[in-house]
Amino acid sequence: MSKAIPEPVTRLIDAFARLPGVGPKTASRLTYFLLRAPDELSDTLSQAIGELKLKTRLCSVCYNITEDDPCDICKDPQRDATLIAVVEEPLDALALEKTGSFTGRYHVLHGVISPREGIGPEQLKIRELVKRVQSEGVRELIISTNPGMEGDATAMFIKAELAGAGLNLKMTRLARGLPTGADLEYTDSVTLMRALQGRQDL
Amino acid sequence: MSKAIPEPVTRLIDAFARLPGVGPKTASRLTYFLLRAPDELSDTLSQAIGELKLKTRLCSVCYNITEDDPCDICKDPQRDATLIAVVEEPLDALALEKTGSFTGRYHVLHGVISPREGIGPEQLKIRELVKRVQSEGVRELIISTNPGMEGDATAMFIKAELAGAGLNLKMTRLARGLPTGADLEYTDSVTLMRALQGRQDL
Repeated sequence: MSKAIPEPVTRLIDAFARLPGVGPKTASRLTYFLLRAPDELSDTLSQAIGELKLKTRLCSVCYNITEDDPCDICKDPQRDATLIAVVEEPLDALALEKTGSFTGRYHVLHGVISPREGIGPEQLKIRELVKRVQSEGVRELIISTNPGMEGDATAMFIKAELAGAGLNLKMTRLARGLPTGADLEYTDSVTLMRALQGRQDL
Repeated sequence: MSKAIPEPVTRLIDAFARLPGVGPKTASRLTYFLLRAPDELSDTLSQAIGELKLKTRLCSVCYNITEDDPCDICKDPQRDATLIAVVEEPLDALALEKTGSFTGRYHVLHGVISPREGIGPEQLKIRELVKRVQSEGVRELIISTNPGMEGDATAMFIKAELAGAGLNLKMTRLARGLPTGADLEYTDSVTLMRALQGRQDL
């Protein structure tokens, strides 16, 4: 069987298969696609992957991925420095940014507290957040970790840390409830319970 | 919005999104995964993509992808040179190879006749197949193009070409019928019709 596949092909299939959500079948499909595609595509892809880490770093203020330190958002005087959305991952900051309705800045934790995966608070950028609140005159933290056990526990931990440091500021959490387009009939009961609890005046 | 994503990140997301089956969401997920993954993974992936085309070529006998020309299968004296499976793509040869029950050699057409996509017979390795049959004393061609209009038309075209060249040899087509594990109730009627037509003695 191995005779049917040359080594450079196997090597790329194996590498692709290490990406999340890419099984061995998808990995071979991608590889054989690249074999047929113009050289320009493999060149672009190879170079972009090679340069990804060389040309990016974490912003020393908010820990988002950036080319320049501090990042464009932290440097932007138009963005409210007293309002910080605390997110798990850079993609979460991006999702909030896409709403076009957040005018504050971000703080990327790079994970959540997860005893199951052996991730404790010291591995997250929580100490850095406390320092930032102390020195930057932050007015409100919107804790935007994902809804769910780990995200909620991380939110509570941050609250306790800030209280422990004697920092009293407004802390909020993203609203929970029905997503747009939801169908009550098919909504899980935790979501529905949250929607009831958070009901708003008409 | 663009401010939230540094350029090297966007560039890789865009490159990933050019791969088949990879939408913009998957492309960002893969990119941010690589940002967090060990450098070794991006290095391996970047290098494997870069070397894929540099280190492979088409076998000048069977047109499969290979490192050395001719390929290992065409060079292997154990493989029956008089029995050739004609396939559309290298992955199809690989699929047959994985059965472990094919002892002949391959011929990769690199596509099928498809007026819809503007692919005519002259863009496929059909002329090369005719030459090969002429010079190599081939006993049987198993036309293993995909079942369906285009694969069937390509099979008929090859048959006509060989007849036109005065070549009389056994030509077969992979059996059509029920796949293993199929449920008659959910089988499409064309497949069921083929299974009836090709029914075998018990």
